[in-house]
Amino acid sequence: MRLPEPVLNLISELRKLPGVGEKTATRYVLFWLQRPPQAMTDLAERLKVAAGSVRPCAVCGFVAEGERCGFCEDPARDRSTVCVVEGVADVLAIERVGEYRGLYHVLGGAVSALRGIKPDDLRVEGLLDRVTRGDVREVILATGADAEGETTALYLARALADHGVRVTRPATGIPMGSSIEFLDAVTLMRALRGRKEIGGL
Amino acid sequence: MRLPEPVLNLISELRKLPGVGEKTATRYVLFWLQRPPQAMTDLAERLKVAAGSVRPCAVCGFVAEGERCGFCEDPARDRSTVCVVEGVADVLAIERVGEYRGLYHVLGGAVSALRGIKPDDLRVEGLLDRVTRGDVREVILATGADAEGETTALYLARALADHGVRVTRPATGIPMGSSIEFLDAVTLMRALRGRKEIGGL
Repeated sequence: MRLPEPVLNLISELRKLPGVGEKTATRYVLFWLQRPPQAMTDLAERLKVAAGSVRPCAVCGFVAEGERCGFCEDPARDRSTVCVVEGVADVLAIERVGEYRGLYHVLGGAVSALRGIKPDDLRVEGLLDRVTRGDVREVILATGADAEGETTALYLARALADHGVRVTRPATGIPMGSSIEFLDAVTLMRALRGRKEIGGL
Repeated sequence: MRLPEPVLNLISELRKLPGVGEKTATRYVLFWLQRPPQAMTDLAERLKVAAGSVRPCAVCGFVAEGERCGFCEDPARDRSTVCVVEGVADVLAIERVGEYRGLYHVLGGAVSALRGIKPDDLRVEGLLDRVTRGDVREVILATGADAEGETTALYLARALADHGVRVTRPATGIPMGSSIEFLDAVTLMRALRGRKEIGGL
């Protein structure tokens, strides 16, 4: 490719993004180049502002502009419940539901033998601190329903066992809208084992 | 969403990219936030450098760092042939083939009644200038094989008619690897009309 060096540098920078290959990165850069140069300068400015002001919340690990995030600072959130998740994106997904009113704790990943991630690499110490210190009455372990998420939940459940809090995990089962025919065996087995009486008939 | 203002600003900036919605833009920003702040500052710096130094080539409209692009400055390229394309990405696609050795002319779009793009909005004047001034012997009209690309090619063919250059258009036909069964009618009709004798048997 005969593209100028600064353009190639930009493309290689954007290729680091999840799911972005050379073609997509090139398309993004060409899109910016077709707009007035001010558009790229604006974006650069916004990146710099974010890099300088945004960091993980000192309490829960969510994205924060100051010391603490919007959840930890919000007096309207229920401080007795902490929902433990792997990443920031999980918090956003749960917030989209609009049901949960408690606080969060972002681990920053899941325990993984394969990828060499140990509990010490995660925000576990901070979670135990929060539970020891405070008003927490329930910890919801909302890590993924895959092998790593399950391992992490099990590890945390043990670590929290003698802290006098209720430790729960979201229900597993058949996702809404799916047909039995195409479900994987593990989901189906769990759904059957966790079956409930149909009430109110 | 309880994300800080600078993060929301970044997300809304990235949503302008082609094919990027709120979810993808959020994923990109969270990915950057999970890396050291230096990564975002580096990207900002690269964007600024590109915004300040990259502009369309004064001759052909391709991406250039100085006055002229790498193609127009390259003495090894054949100056007698100019390949006219709609956009910069088309140049990159043709270069990937590695077959073409001539120069380019990037129109910056295609004539479109629907989107109100007239020949005056494109780099047409510059093309006629190049042909009038110089050593050009063939102009290849490699605009898209859709309605807008065809209209543009027809318009340019007429505009170039009395300039004493050969005006060509890439062959249309059955794309390699496709079966007749699933081809659209227009492609099949053109392929049949443009049929060729099989030689060398």
